[in-house]
Amino acid sequence: MRFFADCQARVAADLISGRWPMVVLYALAEGPARPGELRRQIGGISQKVLTGTLRRLEHNGLVERRRYAEAPPRVEYSLTTAGKDLLVPIRALGDWAAVYADQLPAGEPLGP
Amino acid sequence: MRFFADCQARVAADLISGRWPMVVLYALAEGPARPGELRRQIGGISQKVLTGTLRRLEHNGLVERRRYAEAPPRVEYSLTTAGKDLLVPIRALGDWAAVYADQLPAGEPLGP
Repeated sequence: MRFFADCQARVAADLISGRWPMVVLYALAEGPARPGELRRQIGGISQKVLTGTLRRLEHNGLVERRRYAEAPPRVEYSLTTAGKDLLVPIRALGDWAAVYADQLPAGEPLGP
Repeated sequence: MRFFADCQARVAADLISGRWPMVVLYALAEGPARPGELRRQIGGISQKVLTGTLRRLEHNGLVERRRYAEAPPRVEYSLTTAGKDLLVPIRALGDWAAVYADQLPAGEPLGP
């Protein structure tokens, strides 16, 4: 029973692994935004990588894409309820890292 | 300032990404254990993978290895304070997944 729970935690951890998913989720914490706004707000992310990250988050049910039939058409992304709730463990990870990041070995953490 | 915090959260997320780190941290939540005990308790993990996972967790300062000069020598692993505290966000991820795992798309989540 216990390890079933871990297994679920792992599903959640996999969703936010990688360089950008958490940054993009955070950037959407304040409300819906257009891709161009997100790029400016985040900084240091290419359009291609942002698009791929948004697609991944949308596929995983964490963000929602809305297309408005304007001229030119406007696209906005926003967090789903699942995406908003995922900010809770993300913040807990951030709190942990704020205390312990300095104690980690220099360089990248040892990978899987 | 905001994205600095995310960046730290990412460090923490990277530490627990992959198939086994969270499972092994959980297995150590109840106290120090020998590798053989861990293997039996976890189930479905090879000795080689368990050793690699423990080495990674030790390198990252989350578990501690103690070797007792007995005959035959006895080795025990335990959580460091950082490792114990990392159970907090891990549990938060598990709570999130308990609510939302069923809503995720079938199959593996879309990778980075």
